[in-house]
Amino acid sequence: MLKDEIAKRSSIVEEAIRKYLPVREPEGLYKAARHLIGAGGKRLRPVLSLIATEAIGEDWNRILPAAVAIETIHNFTLIHDDIMDRDVMRRGVPTVHVAFDEATAILAGDTLFAEAFEIITRCDVDAANLVRASRMLTDVCVKICEGQYLDMSFEKQNSISEEDYLEMVKKKTGVLIAASCALPAVLFGKDDEIVDALWNFGLLSGIAFQIHDDVLDLTGKDKIGKDWGSDIVEGKKTLIMIKAMEMGVEIDIFGKGKATKEEIEKAVKKLEKCGAIDYAAKKAREFVEEGKARLSVLEDSSAKSLLMDIADYLVTREY
Amino acid sequence: MLKDEIAKRSSIVEEAIRKYLPVREPEGLYKAARHLIGAGGKRLRPVLSLIATEAIGEDWNRILPAAVAIETIHNFTLIHDDIMDRDVMRRGVPTVHVAFDEATAILAGDTLFAEAFEIITRCDVDAANLVRASRMLTDVCVKICEGQYLDMSFEKQNSISEEDYLEMVKKKTGVLIAASCALPAVLFGKDDEIVDALWNFGLLSGIAFQIHDDVLDLTGKDKIGKDWGSDIVEGKKTLIMIKAMEMGVEIDIFGKGKATKEEIEKAVKKLEKCGAIDYAAKKAREFVEEGKARLSVLEDSSAKSLLMDIADYLVTREY
Repeated sequence: MLKDEIAKRSSIVEEAIRKYLPVREPEGLYKAARHLIGAGGKRLRPVLSLIATEAIGEDWNRILPAAVAIETIHNFTLIHDDIMDRDVMRRGVPTVHVAFDEATAILAGDTLFAEAFEIITRCDVDAANLVRASRMLTDVCVKICEGQYLDMSFEKQNSISEEDYLEMVKKKTGVLIAASCALPAVLFGKDDEIVDALWNFGLLSGIAFQIHDDVLDLTGKDKIGKDWGSDIVEGKKTLIMIKAMEMGVEIDIFGKGKATKEEIEKAVKKLEKCGAIDYAAKKAREFVEEGKARLSVLEDSSAKSLLMDIADYLVTREY
Repeated sequence: MLKDEIAKRSSIVEEAIRKYLPVREPEGLYKAARHLIGAGGKRLRPVLSLIATEAIGEDWNRILPAAVAIETIHNFTLIHDDIMDRDVMRRGVPTVHVAFDEATAILAGDTLFAEAFEIITRCDVDAANLVRASRMLTDVCVKICEGQYLDMSFEKQNSISEEDYLEMVKKKTGVLIAASCALPAVLFGKDDEIVDALWNFGLLSGIAFQIHDDVLDLTGKDKIGKDWGSDIVEGKKTLIMIKAMEMGVEIDIFGKGKATKEEIEKAVKKLEKCGAIDYAAKKAREFVEEGKARLSVLEDSSAKSLLMDIADYLVTREY
């Protein structure tokens, strides 16, 4: 049911992506720029934009370019993040700097970034609203950079508080999902009350989405696409680890670079037993509930229910 | 005289840069993002925007953010280009990836890029014109990426034609100078005739600027900031080398990575004797003359004369 509703809209997004992001000359550059976005992905963000448009009673044909722009920005950040994090695989394909080279990957990301801000101007809405939407999106891009910077700098710091972590996740993941939900309302010139409600719904759901990702890394085992427990081995300061450290629980393989399956199993058990995993899972659910509550200012509709169902799905999915 | 006129306006630009690009939190990121733009530079592009505004009889106070946005984009491209080209010094200071690290430099560039598109929205003009200007600037950014890609790919190709070279230079250097001159006219809603005239003036002057740079690399000797003749040693396919190769002139140190002063001297003499250097210098002057001629649609004014003087200066400067 939920999957069908998402699939219906994501196929519209796919078509729009092909339309607005063709391969041009010089081909080498555009092939690199389209490599990751062409490899698929859930299209969660643009689908949220479409449903948010329905929830405010408007026609998403007029703002489809904005939905594509958001997915384009998401892909730009992934390309650059993969260079910084030295990741070699994503969505089952080699990352752009691996499939091409680093210089081309930097340029491919820059190209997508510029294209995104060109594409959004093609929305069929009032110019003043377009300027407001464009300003929201630039502000979001600045915050994403800040979030990625914080994430990288946490690696070098010993004590990260829950507050620090939430600030980082808000910027790195939250604000783009917030914009996915709120941009349509800005583009259609809705009242601040509606814009804020959709923004906060997206922001809180986005933070929950990331926390649930951290939980899945430890509980998902073979279902998740990446190595089980990699966050612990890599020394990532997730909410779970922050909570465990706060409670004085020592995880000896934390940040050690590698560990056996047995060692990971032992570490996960320890994190389960001390309650850190449950704590994070509960936090994620709370954020989603808080986010859903913000939608109360919107009139009831099937689209509004769908937004809430997606938020629930973000913290119950098993991979 | 000309220097005074430029200095008067560049000090206004400096002040606006400080206003629109403050150091925020996280400090580490913003220090990296401000590192290069804070190290100075000629501010040629924003100064052109100010004078172009005067030449169309408007008040640049209303579009000062656009001038800052252009300089911001220029600096973003320099930061990323320096990573790709592995350059270690610029404007007398270490490049951003050297002074900080590569990941921070990628993010610093991305941050500036996003900020530029936020800053331009602060112009005090009609929203519809702002959308048009924003679209022009995004299109320019896409072309700059294409130009840098072409420049990098030329290194791996044996035969580059004059046409290929000019296409690359147009995108890598020309279009941003074109936008510097034309954006004010777009922002103030001037007729296409005026916008096109200023665009083409900037485009042709920008191409000439780059060709003259190539000439200076061979004739500037101790006056230029970088190593004399470095383009030959690095195997750069400049218009001079393309012309020399076309004439069958062989330069044995071309692309050899290093050479003695005597070898460079000998190579430059050869390029002088065959007429390749004169050919490029003449081309640059022709582009400038063609560019200046495009301004005929503008009413005469001291600002218009100043634009023409700057264009002349671009191909007569000795460093």
